[in-house]
Amino acid sequence: MSKKRFATATEQNLFRIFTIPEAPDSTLAKIEQEVSQNLDGFLRENIVAVEKPLSDIEQDFQESLVPERPQFVSDVADELLHKLVAQSVHTSSPSFIGHMTSALPYFLLPLSKLMVGLNQNLVKIETSKAFTPLERQTIGMLHRIAYGQGRTEAENEAYYDAMMHSADASLGAFCSGGTIANISALWVARNTLLGPQPGFKGVAKEGLFRAMMHYGYKRLVVLVSERGHYSLGKAADVLGMGRQDIVSVGTDENNKIRIDLLEQKIAELKAEGAGILALIGVAGTTETGNIDPLDAMADIAEREGIHFHVDAAWGGATMLSENARPLLKGIERADSITVDAHKQMYVPMGAGMVLFKDPHSTDVIEHHAEYILRKGSKDLGSHTLEGSRPGMSMLVYACLKVMGRSGYQMLIDRSIDTAKYFAELIKQDPDFELVSEPELCLLTYRYVPKPVKDYMATCNQEEREIINELLNDLTKFIQKKQRESGKSFVSRTRLTPKAHNGQTITVFRCVLANPLTTKEILQDILAEQKEIAKDSWRSLPAILKKVGLTA
Amino acid sequence: MSKKRFATATEQNLFRIFTIPEAPDSTLAKIEQEVSQNLDGFLRENIVAVEKPLSDIEQDFQESLVPERPQFVSDVADELLHKLVAQSVHTSSPSFIGHMTSALPYFLLPLSKLMVGLNQNLVKIETSKAFTPLERQTIGMLHRIAYGQGRTEAENEAYYDAMMHSADASLGAFCSGGTIANISALWVARNTLLGPQPGFKGVAKEGLFRAMMHYGYKRLVVLVSERGHYSLGKAADVLGMGRQDIVSVGTDENNKIRIDLLEQKIAELKAEGAGILALIGVAGTTETGNIDPLDAMADIAEREGIHFHVDAAWGGATMLSENARPLLKGIERADSITVDAHKQMYVPMGAGMVLFKDPHSTDVIEHHAEYILRKGSKDLGSHTLEGSRPGMSMLVYACLKVMGRSGYQMLIDRSIDTAKYFAELIKQDPDFELVSEPELCLLTYRYVPKPVKDYMATCNQEEREIINELLNDLTKFIQKKQRESGKSFVSRTRLTPKAHNGQTITVFRCVLANPLTTKEILQDILAEQKEIAKDSWRSLPAILKKVGLTA
Repeated sequence: MSKKRFATATEQNLFRIFTIPEAPDSTLAKIEQEVSQNLDGFLRENIVAVEKPLSDIEQDFQESLVPERPQFVSDVADELLHKLVAQSVHTSSPSFIGHMTSALPYFLLPLSKLMVGLNQNLVKIETSKAFTPLERQTIGMLHRIAYGQGRTEAENEAYYDAMMHSADASLGAFCSGGTIANISALWVARNTLLGPQPGFKGVAKEGLFRAMMHYGYKRLVVLVSERGHYSLGKAADVLGMGRQDIVSVGTDENNKIRIDLLEQKIAELKAEGAGILALIGVAGTTETGNIDPLDAMADIAEREGIHFHVDAAWGGATMLSENARPLLKGIERADSITVDAHKQMYVPMGAGMVLFKDPHSTDVIEHHAEYILRKGSKDLGSHTLEGSRPGMSMLVYACLKVMGRSGYQMLIDRSIDTAKYFAELIKQDPDFELVSEPELCLLTYRYVPKPVKDYMATCNQEEREIINELLNDLTKFIQKKQRESGKSFVSRTRLTPKAHNGQTITVFRCVLANPLTTKEILQDILAEQKEIAKDSWRSLPAILKKVGLTA
Repeated sequence: MSKKRFATATEQNLFRIFTIPEAPDSTLAKIEQEVSQNLDGFLRENIVAVEKPLSDIEQDFQESLVPERPQFVSDVADELLHKLVAQSVHTSSPSFIGHMTSALPYFLLPLSKLMVGLNQNLVKIETSKAFTPLERQTIGMLHRIAYGQGRTEAENEAYYDAMMHSADASLGAFCSGGTIANISALWVARNTLLGPQPGFKGVAKEGLFRAMMHYGYKRLVVLVSERGHYSLGKAADVLGMGRQDIVSVGTDENNKIRIDLLEQKIAELKAEGAGILALIGVAGTTETGNIDPLDAMADIAEREGIHFHVDAAWGGATMLSENARPLLKGIERADSITVDAHKQMYVPMGAGMVLFKDPHSTDVIEHHAEYILRKGSKDLGSHTLEGSRPGMSMLVYACLKVMGRSGYQMLIDRSIDTAKYFAELIKQDPDFELVSEPELCLLTYRYVPKPVKDYMATCNQEEREIINELLNDLTKFIQKKQRESGKSFVSRTRLTPKAHNGQTITVFRCVLANPLTTKEILQDILAEQKEIAKDSWRSLPAILKKVGLTA
C-alpha cells in the first residue's frame, strides 16, 4: 500500500480512509510512534524553542477556503507537524509551571485512542451501554470521597448500592469542564429556589421574569468571595441573574472569604428583599490556590437555607489525600461540588464533573424527548446541560484504579511540598517577594531587587505606589520574555494584597502540580528571571529619579 | 521492563507511569495495536454479540470505594476490556443505523492521540498558541462555506483576511456539542435584544428581570417548529426564558414549519406584548432529517428584526455538497448557525460549533479576567460559554483537508442516495410502511403486515387508532429485540404524521450516514425485522378480535 493515500475524491479512495489504517511507514504512523514511545522527547524535538510572534504564526493559518480536492493524509500530517505542533505549547513540560496542565500518565494515551475508537455517546444508553454504568460508578466514587466520610462503611455500601444506578437518582454528572459544572450547579440551585408552587409552574417552565414576580424577589444574587472564578460571572449572565448579581465578599490576607463581611452582606441583601440563590465556597482559588472556610460557610448556608456550592475545580482532587483533606473541611456539607479531573486528577482536557449531595436535586432540571431520554430510562442525558458527550469517564476511572487513593495522595502531597519548597526558595532570595503563601500547590511572587525593596521599606505610601507601578511593568516584561525564550513558563495575574494596602500588584503565578517538576527546575526558573531582569531593574533608580523620587 | 507496573504507591512507581510508555507486549499496548490496525475487527471480536440486560451490566460497576492501593495498568486494561468494551456499543458498525455515529476515518485515531498528548487548552493563547489561529481558521472555513457564497472570491479573501484573526472579531466558536452551540447562539440573541440603553446596563449586567421591566416585555419567546430539538427547551430553561416560551409552530406533512402558522403566531405574540428573542430554522430535524423553508423564514426574521438562528447540528455538513446545498437555501441569511462536526463531518464526539454571521455579535457576551483573557487579547475564551477546552479543531481541520470539499460532497450525496434506496426498499415491501421520506439521510418507517395494512384501508378511524396502538407496541418490540440480538440497530421515535390524522405513531428511525452501510445490510435489516415480527404480528388479529374488532 502506498504511503500517499486519497488525493482524489473517488468513492474507492473515500472508503479506504474509513477501512484501511495508516501504513506503518507513513508520516502519521511515525508521528504516532514517537508520541507513544517518548512524548516528552517528541514535543521537545518538534516544538520550536523560541516562540514566533502570534502574527507570524497566523500567516500559516490564513486560508479560509476549504480545499476543493482531497489531500494526502501524509501531507496533512506533515503540515500539522510543521505549522501546528511546532508552534504549540509544551504544556506537560516540568518547567511549564504557569497553568494547570501537567505531565499525564502514559497509559492515558492508548486509552484515549480506545475511547475515540469506541466513540460512545453518553447522552443515552443505546449509544453507550456499559459506559453509562461506568460513568455512574465513577461519579459514585467521587461522591463517596466527598460525602461518604460521615457514614460507616456499611452505610455507605447500602447508600451507593441504592443510589448509584437508580433511574430516579443522580449523584452528579460529567461535563466538558468546570464552567459547565458551575453553571449546572447554579441552574439546579435556581430551579430549586424558584420551584413550582400552587399557581406557579416553576422557573424552568415559566421563566425567570414570572418567577421573580411570583416569589416577590427584587433581586436574585449569588454570594462568593472576590477571588471567585470568572466563570461565575458568565454563569450569572447565562442563567439570567446578571453579572452584577454575583455579590463579591471581601477576603482576608490569605484570600479567604471574610465571614464577618459575608454575614453583613447577607443581612443587607435580606433587608433589600433580594433572594439568595447560592453561597459559593472556593476550594482552590484560581489565582492563589487558597480555600475558603467551608465549614463556617456551611453553617451560614444551613442557617439561612441557602444552596451551598463549592467550586473545587482545582482543589477537588485534594480530597483524595488524607493529609491534605482537612484543608477542605466542610466540603462534605456542600449541596453541590465542581471538580475538574483535567486539573489535579491528571486526566487530559475535557473532564469536568459536578456532584450533588442530594441525588434527587437534579429533578428540577430533568428533561425528556421522544426519540431519546424517555421517562424512567437511565439515560444520563436527561439531567445534563450538555447532550452528546464522549466517554471521558473511562479515563478518570482508569486513573482512580491505577493510582489508587494512596497514589493520588502521594501526588497531591508532593505538589504541596514542591510549592512549599519553592516558596522557601523565593523567601530566601533577597531579590524576590513571595506574595501569596501556598496552601495547595499554587503560589504567587514577584521580582523586587533588594535595593528597591530596601528603599520601599523606608519611603512613604505615595512613593511605594509609584514604585509598585514600575514593578508591575517589570514583572510583565520578565514573564513575557521568559515565555518567549521557551525554556520555562510562569503565568501572571493581578492581585490586591493587604501587604500593599490593596494596591493592584502584578505577580508571577505558579501551579506546581506536575510531579516531574524538580527542585533544580525551580532554581533555574528563578535564575532565569534574575538574568532577564538584570538590565531592566538597573534602570529603576533612574526612572525613580525621573518621576521625582530618589532611590 | 516488566509488564506489571505500579502496584504499590511509591514515588518511583508514580514517576514511571508519567515517564515510561507501555511495554509493547503489555495488555494495553496490545489493545492499542488491535485498535490501530483493525478497529472494526477489534470491536467485533471484543464487543459481545448478544446484549446483557443493563441490570446485569451494572453488577460489574457496583464498587463505590476508590481502591486504596494502586493497580497494575495491565489489570485495569484487562478489566476495561472485559467489563466495559465487551458491553459497549459498536457505534461505527455499518449496521448500526439508529443514531448519528458512523465509521470514522482511520487517520483520526493517531491524530486524536496526538491531540491528547499535546493537551492544549484553547481557552487562552498561552496554553494553545498555534491552536488558536488554527481554530480561528477552521471556524473561518466553515463560516465561508456558510456565508461566503454571495461574495466574489476577492471579496471573500479580503473579508476573511480582515476578520479571521482579528482580536475584536469572532466568526464563531468551537464547543462540546450542539446543545452548547444552541445555548451560545440564543445567549447572544438574548443579550442583543436586551442590550444596554440609556439608564439600563443590559441584561448581561443587570439580569433578565430588570431587562424585562426596562424593555416592557411581558414575555420573551423563541419560535421554532414542533420538530425543534429538545435541547432548545433546555436552552430556554437555562437562559431564564422558561420552557413554555419555546413557542412551537405546526409543521406540514414533510415536517417543515408552516409559514402561514408562523405568521399567525408572530401576530398573536406581538399583540400580547411578547418579545421575540429568536426564530429558529431547523436544518435537519433530529427525527426525520427535514429542513425548514429557511429562505422564507429569513424573510420574516428580516422584516420583523428578529435574530434568525439555524440549528444545522445535523444538516450543516450538507453545505459542503454543491448538489445538496440547495436544500439549505437561506441558511446564508442566518444570524447564527449550529453545526456538529461529530455528526456528518465524521469527527469523533465532542466537536460542536456555532457560527455568527456578524463577527461582532459576540461582543454582548464578552468577558475578561485578570489572569487570562485580558482585554484586547485574542484568547478564544473571552467569548465562549465554556472555559478550558481541548484542541478538537485539529481533527475538523484535518478532515476538511484530507477529504476536501469534493470528498465531503461524495459522502453527503452518497448518504442521501443510500437513504433514498432504503426508502424504495421499504416502499416496495408490502409489509412495511415508509412514514417519512428522506430529504437528507434520515428516514422513518414501521412494520405493518400486509393483511393489517389492507384491513386498515377499509376500517373506520376509531378502529385504525386502536390498531395503531397495537402496531406501536409491535414496533417497540421489534426495535428492542433487534438491538438486543446485536446484529443491527435502528432507533425508534414517536411522530404524529398527517397520514394518520396526527395520531402518535411509534416508528423506526434510521440515520444512513455511515459510508460503509451497503444495500445488502439494509436488505438484511428489513429481513431481520420481519423475522422478529413473524410470531408477534400473527397475534394481531386475535388481539383485534379481543378488543371488539374483526380482522
